[in-house]
Amino acid sequence: MKNLKLICTNCGKEYLIDKFKVRCDECSEPLEVEEIKTGKIRNENILTQSIFDRYRDFMPFSSFDNSLTLSEGFTPLVKSNRLAEEIGIKDVYFKNETQNPTWSFKDRGTSACIIHAAKIGYKRIGTVSTGNMAPSVAAYGRKNNLQTYVLVNSNIPDEKLNPIAIYSPHLIKVDGDYGNLYYKSLEIGKKNDIYFMNSDVPFRVEGSKTIAFEICEQFNFEMPDYVIIPTSAGGNVRGIEKGFREFENAGLIKIIPKIIVAQALGCSPIVKAFDDGKETIERFSNPDTIAHAIENPYPPSGNQVLRMLKRNEGLAVAVNEEEIINAQRLQAEEGIFGQPASAVALAALIKLREQNKIKENDSVVCIVTGSGLKYTAAFKKHDLEASDCKLENLSHMLKKEKL
Amino acid sequence: MKNLKLICTNCGKEYLIDKFKVRCDECSEPLEVEEIKTGKIRNENILTQSIFDRYRDFMPFSSFDNSLTLSEGFTPLVKSNRLAEEIGIKDVYFKNETQNPTWSFKDRGTSACIIHAAKIGYKRIGTVSTGNMAPSVAAYGRKNNLQTYVLVNSNIPDEKLNPIAIYSPHLIKVDGDYGNLYYKSLEIGKKNDIYFMNSDVPFRVEGSKTIAFEICEQFNFEMPDYVIIPTSAGGNVRGIEKGFREFENAGLIKIIPKIIVAQALGCSPIVKAFDDGKETIERFSNPDTIAHAIENPYPPSGNQVLRMLKRNEGLAVAVNEEEIINAQRLQAEEGIFGQPASAVALAALIKLREQNKIKENDSVVCIVTGSGLKYTAAFKKHDLEASDCKLENLSHMLKKEKL
Repeated sequence: MKNLKLICTNCGKEYLIDKFKVRCDECSEPLEVEEIKTGKIRNENILTQSIFDRYRDFMPFSSFDNSLTLSEGFTPLVKSNRLAEEIGIKDVYFKNETQNPTWSFKDRGTSACIIHAAKIGYKRIGTVSTGNMAPSVAAYGRKNNLQTYVLVNSNIPDEKLNPIAIYSPHLIKVDGDYGNLYYKSLEIGKKNDIYFMNSDVPFRVEGSKTIAFEICEQFNFEMPDYVIIPTSAGGNVRGIEKGFREFENAGLIKIIPKIIVAQALGCSPIVKAFDDGKETIERFSNPDTIAHAIENPYPPSGNQVLRMLKRNEGLAVAVNEEEIINAQRLQAEEGIFGQPASAVALAALIKLREQNKIKENDSVVCIVTGSGLKYTAAFKKHDLEASDCKLENLSHMLKKEKL
Repeated sequence: MKNLKLICTNCGKEYLIDKFKVRCDECSEPLEVEEIKTGKIRNENILTQSIFDRYRDFMPFSSFDNSLTLSEGFTPLVKSNRLAEEIGIKDVYFKNETQNPTWSFKDRGTSACIIHAAKIGYKRIGTVSTGNMAPSVAAYGRKNNLQTYVLVNSNIPDEKLNPIAIYSPHLIKVDGDYGNLYYKSLEIGKKNDIYFMNSDVPFRVEGSKTIAFEICEQFNFEMPDYVIIPTSAGGNVRGIEKGFREFENAGLIKIIPKIIVAQALGCSPIVKAFDDGKETIERFSNPDTIAHAIENPYPPSGNQVLRMLKRNEGLAVAVNEEEIINAQRLQAEEGIFGQPASAVALAALIKLREQNKIKENDSVVCIVTGSGLKYTAAFKKHDLEASDCKLENLSHMLKKEKL
């Protein structure tokens, strides 16, 4: 490990980086790896390089075993001219995180945590998730022969359970207040030497930085105006913003894009606090949205996201169910089929453009966080069509003049 | 387009490349783009390069519009030390094609066909598929504002229909002999100017070449002994073998890996002809396998695959349902969850090692063709486990000494 500290994002108290430590003993706010001030990109052939190789100057570990990873990251940035025109802005891009080993952005953070866990000698890992993080941790844990505990909600449907179970973790349905399990798991993990790589632990945030690094390269360091991020616990948005800051520190970019936190109206604790000008979030009552992957009523990094938005001069916006479903379809028609939570970014863009908060000359990146195949119940919300045709009538049906 | 011909793989008759033409007028066998003899890799930053940019010396088109693509390809090669040890060979690698825009290898070929269709002026495209090709063509077609016809079997289940329909193609359930639809569609397409980018059309084969090119780079041009490919129509295996040949022509590699065609025993027309020493395949009666994505009883490139195997000194092997399910689970435990058809390669490796046809010093690549999320009915075949635990008992359950 490099000679860096873990620092409280709120009070600045410092901790050792070679311990598994998530929150501050003094103020309970999330810890973060000390900001890296200098470095360069190790521009080798990506086909034989991992994200942590390429960006090793900006990682808290300098050397590591590449075989711990599944070659996550290096995902495409896809431009949509049609949507840019329809929405009335300069450029729309999608950062397609569905092209990861378990088809969500979570693999970057999981991989970083696995490397950290290996460095400091953990043999047991875990996570609290019913969403994208659960299959990700299960996959990396089993691959690396670690005892892997995945704690899910007791009423998890089979559609979500099976894609976790296939990787053969210790899969535990927890009957009780699932909302507090994030904190409870950290406590249990401390007692029993289990590295709980939950949604906003410091090394997961380090993994998410690589999304920002890749965006910088993909824009040839001429940055877009906004990056819109579907936001749940807050770990991913923290990581992306931190990545931009570190590349700015190193002189690789001159301007940090403004960050937009996008949430579903049915579960929008960060947006609510942001709109009310508050410095801390409150637990969101009766969360209800199709964007299950970001349905977290009390995001553990919520307060830090508010502080980050202030520094970044960013925005936070919530979109309703209809807007999410509409955006999911529009995005699929650009060839990128994301889960409902992933469509929240595009829905937010459309809304902010209508409100003229995003302007016609702006260039915007939407982060597409996870694959649409992960939540097939959303198909029911779309008016999906197929025609029937007898084989002998097919030629007639496809005649040119029929169009 | 470069000055190349389309050549019949059987009788050698030549055709123009700037026409949409799939099979020979004389002998009905598949056409192939003339072999490229020289070229080099354009080694730029992959984050801002497409596969067709990087390997443009080896593509039939020299210039093209990158915005037609979805940045497919550049997929990971993941090594599994545990499986190598268990199976008793030198090295096992997985080429993880599930990390593509629609989560299968098909996107490479679709993209190549879309570029060809644009070059020669087609506004209407189509495909015959109920598997991975259907969503791929639907996605690329809609993205590029092409009228896109996807012809599926009339008894297709919703699980497969919805992930195609979400991209909003003209989706047509065809009632009639679906087995002949491949040939029928080419006929209808010719009459109505529809570019049917079916499973083994020449430009789809050109797209598949990029899998071989990447493998060469990922092995630093020191080639593995075998590449095992789940095989249906035969387009992908033709493309991969052609890619190796062209890199050998160009002096980039010295040895071409031996190709192993892997099929499910329940639908193995190519393996049957291979085992019987025949030069042509016969229609496989009553196909029945969980590996639906490769369940093609009469592969249109079957005869050419037999000719290719002879030249390559390759193998063909079939595996049963139990072996497929077992391999799917083993592969998932390496962090790579492929659909049953994708597990056929690993199942074939295990079988060939047991038969001592693959030796202990061999190094083998298995192509993982598509994501496990595409066929969730396979979950029922696995003994998937989860425990229940009350929150108050969790700490006890996770105690160290419990292990």
